[in-house]
Amino acid sequence: MTTTYSTITVQAPMNIALIKYWGKKNKDLIIPLNDSISITINSLCAITKITVDSNLKNDLVIINGKIENNCRFERVFNEVRNIIDRRKRNVNGELLNENKYFKIESKTNFPISAGLASSAAGFAAISFGLGSLFKFKELKEIVRIARIGSGSACRSILDGFVHWKAGNSDEDDSECICEQITPISHWKELRVLVITTNEQRKKIGSTEAMQRTVLTSKLLKERIEECVPKRIENLKEAILNKNFSQFAEITMAESNQLHAVCLDSYPPIIYLNSTSFLLMEFVHDFNTFYSSPLIAYTFDAGPNCFLFFEEKTFPLFYNSFKNCFNYNKDLIKINFDENENKEIIKLISNEENNGEILKEKNKNIQFPWLEAKQINVQQLLLSKLGDGPKILE
Amino acid sequence: MTTTYSTITVQAPMNIALIKYWGKKNKDLIIPLNDSISITINSLCAITKITVDSNLKNDLVIINGKIENNCRFERVFNEVRNIIDRRKRNVNGELLNENKYFKIESKTNFPISAGLASSAAGFAAISFGLGSLFKFKELKEIVRIARIGSGSACRSILDGFVHWKAGNSDEDDSECICEQITPISHWKELRVLVITTNEQRKKIGSTEAMQRTVLTSKLLKERIEECVPKRIENLKEAILNKNFSQFAEITMAESNQLHAVCLDSYPPIIYLNSTSFLLMEFVHDFNTFYSSPLIAYTFDAGPNCFLFFEEKTFPLFYNSFKNCFNYNKDLIKINFDENENKEIIKLISNEENNGEILKEKNKNIQFPWLEAKQINVQQLLLSKLGDGPKILE
Repeated sequence: MTTTYSTITVQAPMNIALIKYWGKKNKDLIIPLNDSISITINSLCAITKITVDSNLKNDLVIINGKIENNCRFERVFNEVRNIIDRRKRNVNGELLNENKYFKIESKTNFPISAGLASSAAGFAAISFGLGSLFKFKELKEIVRIARIGSGSACRSILDGFVHWKAGNSDEDDSECICEQITPISHWKELRVLVITTNEQRKKIGSTEAMQRTVLTSKLLKERIEECVPKRIENLKEAILNKNFSQFAEITMAESNQLHAVCLDSYPPIIYLNSTSFLLMEFVHDFNTFYSSPLIAYTFDAGPNCFLFFEEKTFPLFYNSFKNCFNYNKDLIKINFDENENKEIIKLISNEENNGEILKEKNKNIQFPWLEAKQINVQQLLLSKLGDGPKILE
Repeated sequence: MTTTYSTITVQAPMNIALIKYWGKKNKDLIIPLNDSISITINSLCAITKITVDSNLKNDLVIINGKIENNCRFERVFNEVRNIIDRRKRNVNGELLNENKYFKIESKTNFPISAGLASSAAGFAAISFGLGSLFKFKELKEIVRIARIGSGSACRSILDGFVHWKAGNSDEDDSECICEQITPISHWKELRVLVITTNEQRKKIGSTEAMQRTVLTSKLLKERIEECVPKRIENLKEAILNKNFSQFAEITMAESNQLHAVCLDSYPPIIYLNSTSFLLMEFVHDFNTFYSSPLIAYTFDAGPNCFLFFEEKTFPLFYNSFKNCFNYNKDLIKINFDENENKEIIKLISNEENNGEILKEKNKNIQFPWLEAKQINVQQLLLSKLGDGPKILE
């Protein structure tokens, strides 16, 4: 008996939806009720080593050092084995026989309990890694494998702005595909600040929550049929024209509507907490004060806040943010990736080294928040956007 | 010149909507976009003295000791003067000539800043008082006067469960009327616990907020056209059958939907705070634990919580509530009206005097909230429901 052995290590980013995926029209194939649009966050990723070893007697998944037993992994592995088997009937298979098992060792550079779409990054890494290892002919196959692992994972396979199309069928997923709207080089000034909160809230997993919304929300149908299709078109237009105001207004209204249909579910689903609401209020006050939507927020199925802005806005924002909120100020420095955000670091340093100039500039500013509010934040992470998965070794 | 002088003192209750009024189809006449259903809360009321004195040179409104200048008062007074003038052309007027002015002195037994629909109680008292003083022939006239002062005030004119119908026109308010569904004697076991919170939140007045929802929420239309009409019928049915489960589920889903369309407005309108969300979660956990909706919540345009239950449920609820929340426990006793709630007081006293029995009874209960949560409450007020306005002197 010969031993076959191969390995690959992949880094795949998490992604954040600007137009949200919420609700499935086919639970087995994970076909969503509506289209969504997302962007990957460079600094939040899963690094995953995949080993195919003929000595393995079972599949084995280890995430951040802990063995995981989730039937979704089996679904993905079996689908990959099916693809390879089908291929073997045409050209002669090279790497596998039917008994091959996979060993997955995955690490995320962010806590998986923080509701930061770790499964999206994880399944993207697994499917991209297996697809590369077994030389899948089409990216479409990798996208599909990621999707049946964890719906939104499929959006992490492509780089840039990604449009996940639901397609017209609820039985056949051939139209359920991902397309790049534009590469990120088109709008490279865009940044995200991820604000994770340490407030503990009782949580409901997004699979169960989606199901509850589909079964009980009276407003979901209107959202799916009327609101989302218009927003998809308008957001694509905003992205292609680099129109930040339009981008911001659609992104925020869309985030609010997701949480509105969650609240309209029975019993209600509440992911936002008091820190989330304070941050939302701050952003609207900031934008009103500067008479333009300079910052946008979005929230997924958790209280963590994702703020978008263009590079040039950051010093203005950061100055207000520091004055309006009480939190551990040391945190923010830790998570600035200096290589990624050289320009921003320079801008802030200049402002901080020129206290007098800043004071002079802000002399006449009466930002509405007179008293600093206490917020519970775990970390602030400033990142560029848009990278796709890559093979590390 | 003769001096004419007359006076009346009226007590009128605030009311809480079970099906919510949110949005106007005619701003001047205050014709709502949808029907609503409410019930008056006996213990929360405005006591209003109205004086008609020919020596007065102006209308004068004093609320809780402070002079108020709101154009809505003028609108109400002018409408009353118009009615009296029209009547004088038919039968000879007795009390008034065109120059008569009104003096209003109103006190509420609850803080007007707490978002407890003080304007509803206030305008109900004024219109009921003026209508009584000038012997309006039809209650309909009083209801209309209250409505053009403050929309939801019209629901405080009738006792019992009240259905405010929007009518079919947005120009003519003759179909915009209130009807009693059933007197409260039909369901006299029903109680409300008003929980006011002392958390400070930036607020937006409901007139402006409604306007914003009408202009920007993409989900409001579905709510108005599809959801509310069904809920009106189903809630009427629940009330007439004294079906508390049905009553509770409609009331809670409806409250959540109101706050969902607020969140779907742009910028979002957020009235609930962390205490509100904790109370909502508690109620759903309580109902799940007892496998039946024994308690229902509703929230108006503020963070204050209104809990409904039948008399018999109170000791069970009160016991869990005390264990699940940290707050100033002395508060609750202050606001129990012993005359109104004799049976409840007796039930609680028995349980409290029999600590051992209670402990035994609850031995096997593992209510999901293992740790008591901190909530910010200002007061707890237990009240009967359904009284209408009355003349005190």
